[in-house]
Amino acid sequence: MPDEPVSLPRRLGRRAFLGRGAILTAGATALGTVFRRAASAEPGSDLPPNVPPWMTQQGAPIVSPAYGEPSPFEHDVVRRPRAKTPTMTASSSTTPLQDLHGIITPNGLHFERHHAGVPAVDPDTHRLLVHGLVDRPLTFTMNDLMRFPSVSRLHFLECSGNGLWTGGTTKSTVQQTHGLLSCCEWTGVLLSTVLGEAGLKPNATWVLAEAADAAGMSRSIPIDKALDDALLVYSQNGERLRPEQGYPLRLLLPGYEGNMSVKWLRRLKLGDQPFQTREETSKYTDLMPDGTARQFTFVMEAKSVITFPSGGHELRDHGFYEISGLAWSGRGRVTRVEVSTDGGASWADARLQEPILTKCLTRFRLPWRWDGSPARLQSRAIDETGYVQPHRPELVAVRGVNSFYHCNAIQEWQVSADGAISNAV
Amino acid sequence: MPDEPVSLPRRLGRRAFLGRGAILTAGATALGTVFRRAASAEPGSDLPPNVPPWMTQQGAPIVSPAYGEPSPFEHDVVRRPRAKTPTMTASSSTTPLQDLHGIITPNGLHFERHHAGVPAVDPDTHRLLVHGLVDRPLTFTMNDLMRFPSVSRLHFLECSGNGLWTGGTTKSTVQQTHGLLSCCEWTGVLLSTVLGEAGLKPNATWVLAEAADAAGMSRSIPIDKALDDALLVYSQNGERLRPEQGYPLRLLLPGYEGNMSVKWLRRLKLGDQPFQTREETSKYTDLMPDGTARQFTFVMEAKSVITFPSGGHELRDHGFYEISGLAWSGRGRVTRVEVSTDGGASWADARLQEPILTKCLTRFRLPWRWDGSPARLQSRAIDETGYVQPHRPELVAVRGVNSFYHCNAIQEWQVSADGAISNAV
Repeated sequence: MPDEPVSLPRRLGRRAFLGRGAILTAGATALGTVFRRAASAEPGSDLPPNVPPWMTQQGAPIVSPAYGEPSPFEHDVVRRPRAKTPTMTASSSTTPLQDLHGIITPNGLHFERHHAGVPAVDPDTHRLLVHGLVDRPLTFTMNDLMRFPSVSRLHFLECSGNGLWTGGTTKSTVQQTHGLLSCCEWTGVLLSTVLGEAGLKPNATWVLAEAADAAGMSRSIPIDKALDDALLVYSQNGERLRPEQGYPLRLLLPGYEGNMSVKWLRRLKLGDQPFQTREETSKYTDLMPDGTARQFTFVMEAKSVITFPSGGHELRDHGFYEISGLAWSGRGRVTRVEVSTDGGASWADARLQEPILTKCLTRFRLPWRWDGSPARLQSRAIDETGYVQPHRPELVAVRGVNSFYHCNAIQEWQVSADGAISNAV
Repeated sequence: MPDEPVSLPRRLGRRAFLGRGAILTAGATALGTVFRRAASAEPGSDLPPNVPPWMTQQGAPIVSPAYGEPSPFEHDVVRRPRAKTPTMTASSSTTPLQDLHGIITPNGLHFERHHAGVPAVDPDTHRLLVHGLVDRPLTFTMNDLMRFPSVSRLHFLECSGNGLWTGGTTKSTVQQTHGLLSCCEWTGVLLSTVLGEAGLKPNATWVLAEAADAAGMSRSIPIDKALDDALLVYSQNGERLRPEQGYPLRLLLPGYEGNMSVKWLRRLKLGDQPFQTREETSKYTDLMPDGTARQFTFVMEAKSVITFPSGGHELRDHGFYEISGLAWSGRGRVTRVEVSTDGGASWADARLQEPILTKCLTRFRLPWRWDGSPARLQSRAIDETGYVQPHRPELVAVRGVNSFYHCNAIQEWQVSADGAISNAV
């Protein structure tokens, strides 16, 4: 077992799956139990083995106007709350990573985190105010903002509470451990463009961003980030923002903890120091072993998680499987993901799916042959700064066990001899 | 007017929008009427101009389990049929390109084209048969196929009937002229991998792909395409295929006309010649002026269209606007998009949004200042083969006017002095 992931990419990956010549000669034994021989079709037969009922009648007509829905067979692929909360207006729901492929999160499954519920903001009356240490205080309508030069970028968004310091329970799914994570193509205007219109005073070093929800959710943004890659976005995956993601306007701070990408954005105030809002004093700080608190821990460090197989999945047969997961870094591009099937004793390089984009999810994959022995699956991400995702003990040694946010420890899934996958707590 | 798009990228684009230094000195006049000065907030004021009603009460709670929906304010952003058809089971619906940003099409808005309605295929009983000129005829369950090594790729899908040889009417929107076009991140297994399992006979040069709908929709695929980048896909934009896009399994032939990416895929038969199905004899052929028909015209040639401003839009003020649109090529990457605001007399290079991917939509943008004069907006795409999107007269000179499919002519939108945008027929 220990060297399986190392040898399999060479044996199956390189020879059987890459290149036309190799494929044509690989033959039926390469993937073992993946396929089954046709029961009713012999070589040369023209007949399919059966005519399914849906070929015997016309299907559903085109409905118009219409906005499409998933198949009823996929009714279990939904957002779910990670935990019970006293009220569901100050709560969160998670993305079902165990059922998704690729890197895009469909908008209907983007995770949620609200502090006072989802406001029904009218885009025609919504305004953005830019004031404070600026030359010209300005208000913008949505039409104003949508006339500015725009950019589209693929970025992940992750709640700082994603990943569990407690490790969860043996029954935790990846939706429960890592589902406060999504990735979209966002379109909007660079914040620097809008700030340039207002004109910054020389001492403008922080930006207060305030939401138009009942919480008046607000955070302080350093000016360097505001003028770097910060966006005011009105579109996700092509269409206008969903209400739960800040319709009609949100801030997007690529790579920063999710709550700073303030939704339903109504106000930007320029100041010369952080504004010390509730969400950066009592909340979204990290209590250290010595009783001090880390404040303004903005960046989501490099992280990865195996999504298949993961908690709740079941391997029904021995033989070939593709281990697959997601890796990301708030500091830039993921450069490497390593996977272990023996609890970290040995590692193999996973294949990274192109395009590999900055501050975006990267899908990784590794071919694996399961021989029926218990196995312990781990992944670790390395980003372009050289940062290596830590094991939980390394993280605890530095940060203690009082923190709630910013847990980017390596996740382990246990494969039992009966094929059941569970969280290794 | 004629040289506006040439001069504007230099005057507004280069100086005002690129680089931090430029932004901070650009000042409030660069974008003219884009913004308005704050009515109630003076420099130094801490108060936003008003407290909207949605800040005075808790918003909607998190619902669970849940699959999210667009904002009710976006109820007009929907699929619509392009034309009346005798039955809505053999019809099409279009993507509202005039309302979308970036390159991703949300799954609920992906265009549809069905030949016998949308079948309700049960993924547990669905099978794929591979037979004909193979060493081993095989059937696969969905679980089998999802165990194979997978890839995720962003590709456009375009109906060969997209774009209108008639040009449409002056009232046509871009949804009506070009809405049989969408783009997703697709995940599945390379067709070459599956064919490798079956083993190809030396004389296997064509593949019949058959759908599990009541039409038994089927097309012949040349073996070179099948072994190149053809995919068997089960996922679009992260989640499983939508029913209208072939749930649970479809063929995806990047860059080829949409109908060949057979949905609800149930059968692949290897043969030594094309199968001459109904959809490649009576349909999906192009009648030429001399009475012959072009058959097997697979590739969607390079094409582009301006989506903003486009038919039905209205420019309410003079001043700055960003012209934006989509470009694509079935032969590879888009390398250049040129935009004209004077009906093709002069052209300026549009900015192309990264990442620029093969056989994928590319978003292009050009800053433009509208002075209130009538204008004629055009775009033309150039791909990595050097192919240049033709004007309609060039296309008609070669192909005549009897064709229905494969119209990739340059589209023109007219801007009238009152700001109304209409289709230039």
